[in-house]
Amino acid sequence: MERHFDEELKNLKEKLLRMSGVVEESIGSAIKALMERNAELSYKVIKGDDTVNRLEIEIDELCLKLLALHHPTAGDLRFITSTMKINSDLERIGDLAVNIAERTLDLLKVPPLKLRLNIPQMADASQAMLKDSLNAFVNKDSKLAYEVCKRDDVVDGFNHEIFMELLNAKAENQKPVERVIDLILVAKNLERVADHSTNICEDVIYMVDGKNIKHHIID
Amino acid sequence: MERHFDEELKNLKEKLLRMSGVVEESIGSAIKALMERNAELSYKVIKGDDTVNRLEIEIDELCLKLLALHHPTAGDLRFITSTMKINSDLERIGDLAVNIAERTLDLLKVPPLKLRLNIPQMADASQAMLKDSLNAFVNKDSKLAYEVCKRDDVVDGFNHEIFMELLNAKAENQKPVERVIDLILVAKNLERVADHSTNICEDVIYMVDGKNIKHHIID
Repeated sequence: MERHFDEELKNLKEKLLRMSGVVEESIGSAIKALMERNAELSYKVIKGDDTVNRLEIEIDELCLKLLALHHPTAGDLRFITSTMKINSDLERIGDLAVNIAERTLDLLKVPPLKLRLNIPQMADASQAMLKDSLNAFVNKDSKLAYEVCKRDDVVDGFNHEIFMELLNAKAENQKPVERVIDLILVAKNLERVADHSTNICEDVIYMVDGKNIKHHIID
Repeated sequence: MERHFDEELKNLKEKLLRMSGVVEESIGSAIKALMERNAELSYKVIKGDDTVNRLEIEIDELCLKLLALHHPTAGDLRFITSTMKINSDLERIGDLAVNIAERTLDLLKVPPLKLRLNIPQMADASQAMLKDSLNAFVNKDSKLAYEVCKRDDVVDGFNHEIFMELLNAKAENQKPVERVIDLILVAKNLERVADHSTNICEDVIYMVDGKNIKHHIID
């Protein structure tokens, strides 16, 4: 029974890693499609969301099965409940990739903006947070998880800066207004990728240290 | 032990109902503040988010405690894991109320828009979905939950309509562009309230019928 349970936990971890790989690729492709104005790649991201949704359900069901059959306690229980939460955050990051892809398809209908925005830098920062939050999970590294949480402010800063630049852009750049709004929504989606990565790190800290730091200020 | 467990489950349900009451009030106040251009009420919504965050942590910890100590199975297990998910959705709805309040404070800096938008109707539809999703939870009413899920399309329709009206408004109404963007973001937040209410209904259906309808089309 115990060995079977260990195998199931390993299986669960592998499934979550597969899910995180798919979601990381989806966000990466959505950003690449935005930068390169690539419609085909945007459609691929939108279509790929089915895989993310399917994996979310599989992982969720596996967690419930493990809770129901094995009555885990302590570390194993925290691992399973954290996995359920991380799974939900990953699914939402998948949705954000789809949103970015949809915005990109909109943006392709109008000429590119003649304005240098820090969207590539913001995308790098968000993607790095996602990657490191998953590394923190794999390596049970709560120190790294704390460090990632602190980086959320940097991404929020980019979001605010891009928002203000778009608002204050010269009139010719603000037309059509759809373009300004699409770019604001892209930045907002990237900011939410960082928020969900922060959530993942909070779950890792809970899983490893048994400490709930949600909504608390980290110094 | 069993009687104690039943009491703990009752306690958990009451806590979640308290949380849902606070969140419903928060969304209601945020919408009222928007309509009445009421800064004081907006600040109250922003400040009130602390209560929501505190309740989220309390409920989450209670769920974990029940899972760890009582090894629930079948219906009780589904009730506890659904409560964890509903708790998370309610906390996010609380955040959306804060976002609306922040947008309202922004909108108060400029004169009101001379345009009749269906934001009050959209707000009513979103709030009714939230209210009914919580009724479905309290009464374990999966039929109502299915019915609420179907209404998500209505709210999406409002969002699209408001978005297009703002984009196509005459030039004098599009200035300052911040105002257009704030109103688009308000509509987007209301649409997300409906999304989270749909999530709650999906959890109720899972809890009551043991059936996972996530990401599936409901006819």
